[in-house]
Amino acid sequence: MQALLNEILDAVRPLIGQGKMADYIPALGTVPPNQLGIAVYGNDGEMYCAGDADTLFSVQSISKVFSLVQAIEHSGEAIWERLGHEPSGQPFNSLVQLEFERGRPRNPFINAGALVICDINQSRFAAPALSMRDFVRRLSGNPQVMVDGKVADSEYQHRARNAAMAYLMQSFGNFHNDVEAVLRSYFSHCALRMSCIDLARAFCFLANDGYCKHSGEQILTPRQTQQVNSIMATSGLYDEAGNFAYRVGLPGKSGVGGGIVAVVPGQFTVCVWSPELNAAGNSLAGMAALEMLSSRIGWSVF
Amino acid sequence: MQALLNEILDAVRPLIGQGKMADYIPALGTVPPNQLGIAVYGNDGEMYCAGDADTLFSVQSISKVFSLVQAIEHSGEAIWERLGHEPSGQPFNSLVQLEFERGRPRNPFINAGALVICDINQSRFAAPALSMRDFVRRLSGNPQVMVDGKVADSEYQHRARNAAMAYLMQSFGNFHNDVEAVLRSYFSHCALRMSCIDLARAFCFLANDGYCKHSGEQILTPRQTQQVNSIMATSGLYDEAGNFAYRVGLPGKSGVGGGIVAVVPGQFTVCVWSPELNAAGNSLAGMAALEMLSSRIGWSVF
Amino acid sequence: MQALLNEILDAVRPLIGQGKMADYIPALGTVPPNQLGIAVYGNDGEMYCAGDADTLFSVQSISKVFSLVQAIEHSGEAIWERLGHEPSGQPFNSLVQLEFERGRPRNPFINAGALVICDINQSRFAAPALSMRDFVRRLSGNPQVMVDGKVADSEYQHRARNAAMAYLMQSFGNFHNDVEAVLRSYFSHCALRMSCIDLARAFCFLANDGYCKHSGEQILTPRQTQQVNSIMATSGLYDEAGNFAYRVGLPGKSGVGGGIVAVVPGQFTVCVWSPELNAAGNSLAGMAALEMLSSRIGWSVF
Amino acid sequence: MQALLNEILDAVRPLIGQGKMADYIPALGTVPPNQLGIAVYGNDGEMYCAGDADTLFSVQSISKVFSLVQAIEHSGEAIWERLGHEPSGQPFNSLVQLEFERGRPRNPFINAGALVICDINQSRFAAPALSMRDFVRRLSGNPQVMVDGKVADSEYQHRARNAAMAYLMQSFGNFHNDVEAVLRSYFSHCALRMSCIDLARAFCFLANDGYCKHSGEQILTPRQTQQVNSIMATSGLYDEAGNFAYRVGLPGKSGVGGGIVAVVPGQFTVCVWSPELNAAGNSLAGMAALEMLSSRIGWSVF
Repeated sequence: MQALLNEILDAVRPLIGQGKMADYIPALGTVPPNQLGIAVYGNDGEMYCAGDADTLFSVQSISKVFSLVQAIEHSGEAIWERLGHEPSGQPFNSLVQLEFERGRPRNPFINAGALVICDINQSRFAAPALSMRDFVRRLSGNPQVMVDGKVADSEYQHRARNAAMAYLMQSFGNFHNDVEAVLRSYFSHCALRMSCIDLARAFCFLANDGYCKHSGEQILTPRQTQQVNSIMATSGLYDEAGNFAYRVGLPGKSGVGGGIVAVVPGQFTVCVWSPELNAAGNSLAGMAALEMLSSRIGWSVF
Repeated sequence: MQALLNEILDAVRPLIGQGKMADYIPALGTVPPNQLGIAVYGNDGEMYCAGDADTLFSVQSISKVFSLVQAIEHSGEAIWERLGHEPSGQPFNSLVQLEFERGRPRNPFINAGALVICDINQSRFAAPALSMRDFVRRLSGNPQVMVDGKVADSEYQHRARNAAMAYLMQSFGNFHNDVEAVLRSYFSHCALRMSCIDLARAFCFLANDGYCKHSGEQILTPRQTQQVNSIMATSGLYDEAGNFAYRVGLPGKSGVGGGIVAVVPGQFTVCVWSPELNAAGNSLAGMAALEMLSSRIGWSVF
Repeated sequence: MQALLNEILDAVRPLIGQGKMADYIPALGTVPPNQLGIAVYGNDGEMYCAGDADTLFSVQSISKVFSLVQAIEHSGEAIWERLGHEPSGQPFNSLVQLEFERGRPRNPFINAGALVICDINQSRFAAPALSMRDFVRRLSGNPQVMVDGKVADSEYQHRARNAAMAYLMQSFGNFHNDVEAVLRSYFSHCALRMSCIDLARAFCFLANDGYCKHSGEQILTPRQTQQVNSIMATSGLYDEAGNFAYRVGLPGKSGVGGGIVAVVPGQFTVCVWSPELNAAGNSLAGMAALEMLSSRIGWSVF
Repeated sequence: MQALLNEILDAVRPLIGQGKMADYIPALGTVPPNQLGIAVYGNDGEMYCAGDADTLFSVQSISKVFSLVQAIEHSGEAIWERLGHEPSGQPFNSLVQLEFERGRPRNPFINAGALVICDINQSRFAAPALSMRDFVRRLSGNPQVMVDGKVADSEYQHRARNAAMAYLMQSFGNFHNDVEAVLRSYFSHCALRMSCIDLARAFCFLANDGYCKHSGEQILTPRQTQQVNSIMATSGLYDEAGNFAYRVGLPGKSGVGGGIVAVVPGQFTVCVWSPELNAAGNSLAGMAALEMLSSRIGWSVF
């Protein structure tokens, strides 16, 4: 495995320079682009790494999985009265579908859906940002996981489109807390800084029937775990979920920070990171690495 | 398995009466609604059936998988220049997305995409309807498989919306053959009459790395097989693909005739049939039966 | 004229009871519905009234004309870099078109356009709400014109959809001031309380080449006056502008408070008011009264 | 007037070279671009011309007015059960709005609406193309008006998008005749060849309360005449109707052949022609000429 990871990183490294850094907030645009890391974590507790696997980066939309899991844990099936689990077929930050479907987001991994999930969690927790940080520390087994306050602030300064979505949902009665407060929580989650190793560990319960070995917690039931994985499989990679299923064949979730996490049910979690993005907003080198890895080991669930 | 199938049919039979027959063409509306059948076919060649498993019904959109496989077989990766493999997030017969995306359908399982696939096959085959019928006969191992001419004609009479899609794609340069001729082929495929047993056998190569045991043909490569399954998983059940992944966790394809086929990679194919549909156009009792079967045996790929 | 006005009110009064009060904010829903008034003001200074012509009501969207005129007065042609003067073909509060056209509203009489106009005026005036109130007092010649603070507050409480529009425009760089502050100004304009008489007088410069006789001000040039009238003619009645042109044939502007103002270029201004609305959000009895009046006197500009 | 027309043509002639010929059918692209003509026809029977006022060109969408008038003449108010008279806010050949509004076109001057009008006329006339040609000959007083068969055929060959619209409307039950036959009629109308002089005369009844002096026919009632003019004013210039009202202030109708007709109610009809188009598909020099003429004489109805 170790040799394979090195080989794959060598194979995809030439892609660096062909992608484009996220630029919608200044803080993300300053990350050195020529970085590439991968971590594979087995259900047996073995960790395999290559490249910049322990460099911290901004998890961004990968945090939407943590929010969803937290919401399922605390609010259960009732959350689906507020949003769906269908792929959206629209850019991740579009308001068009949201208006036609009267403020009910398609799924928890487009921005509108993640905002509703944050609104749900906001009603549950006294300090949602802290609860999330602590939850992620437990999941990853790393008590050092921090929120990058500068990134969170910068995202809040550029909140206009997310604010528009939240207010549009409020106009349909599908937003219950103060918009500004929920946006603060939302951006705090996005601004978590973690490494490939952190993320591979933090997602391992999704490969292990909901059980997180290192924290000793049953985070979700096996059935709930399959359900979260199914939503990642159909909606986890922005407008490229179908392509990820086609090329990689695993449940996965990406972020504009350049990270992608994938789950091999019953066996492994993988996190790959490289900050340059393709046209769909997913890590260019990361997609290629995961495709190679999945096809070499025969990991596709299909 | 046999006992389980009987038990499941008994459990879901009460749903009959709560769905709604397809009524967009008269010929489909005359099928007696209180029918229910299931067939499970193992890669080892074992067939398990219950209920009306050998009753013939109209496969309708399930034929879109046959068309796609035929197109991949004969035209390979080039087909993806003409359409995508992303979920659509729109009703299966919508023109809105098609116009915004300049005549390029999202995937081969919405009507627009299936029409492009038929257009591709129309350019390859002298007699596309016959080629398809013979292909399906080989796949199912049943030389009696027939097209219901009355259904095909009735669908052609009600072709307006599909014709609109085909002409819209033609206006963008993404339709190469005569619209009326391709529509004839398309409706001929939809009007194939097959039983649960026929369909479970016909799809078994998708559970078996592309190899169809009873015909002795390698239909697709293992990689292509995974790819077709991935498209079924993200786009196979109209506007309910996410829900099918969430509840059943298998690649699948449904038709408004009330049939649903699902693939358990490496193990089984299943076909369930009951003509009454839910609001999304999928068999109401069929969805429930597949969910129960999948969760009881632990078939979810996630 | 006086006799004709009485006759017309008698003819349309039976429509009361067939419309529907605006209910999107509670304060508007409490107005007694069986009210009906009309005022016709000639360029010669003659005023003809009938019914509840001096009862105060909430001008709501009629204020969008005042905002536009103020913006043209102080910012001139440059405003058209920020928005268009084309009819929208969409509900007046839709975000769909706004997203497709990248935050540039179609015209100043849909909500998004009026918000951009308020944003423009917000940059010009230290106290936009007061400036507007004083402007309207001068135009109407009535120094008693007031803002209904309760209505303005209630609209602000229900600002979600307008806030969504403003933030969406901000995300496209087409909103320069603090969203909350501009919304406060906007709702203050909407909450002006005026009578038919006030409004007929306040609009008379649009029938008089831009000159307001009673204040002695040349508000707009004759050319600008024609331009404002042209925008009222193509976009003044929500999603019923075409129907108003078809039935009445005059530039006009309506509000959900039940008022409609129309301009007979070179001759008269008319204001009719009755609070019950038709399906398009325009005064039901008011439309009928204006149609009758226009056709009886032959006022259609077409 | 004669001197003014010459002066205006001289002033706008420099715009030639800055527009773009219609290219959606080859036959239109071959017209020499440097042509420019204008004709003004008074209700008193006086004709003023300048430039290429008697050169024949393809009327294209200007024919939509003839179709509408014919439909009103023979089918009256009932036509509004099939389509609206609201501006569309969408490109003239869009299918999006048509799908959302369930096959009911917004107005008779977008393609979908004109096709419904042709469908209505197709049900009335044994030979719709001939009836139209004869109607236009009478209106223009020119028995030589012909259809350009080559243009009509070429448009039929490129009918895909119009066919898509017609079939979409058929799928909603709003198209009653054979699609191909109606398209033939529709393109035959578009392919009428007329000069500025022909068109100014043919439209003069719209400036004259519906009465066509040279044929001695009352084509429409005065009320119907105002209504047709109102639809031209709100929807006559594709996606630039608002701009035409803003700049010219007259009811008008344009075609991609480069012609624009405008009506000065009670006084004149004007036809200007120059084949190069602006981004909205309207004659670039023609728009400028009409704006100058209208503002110089003070023709704006607003």
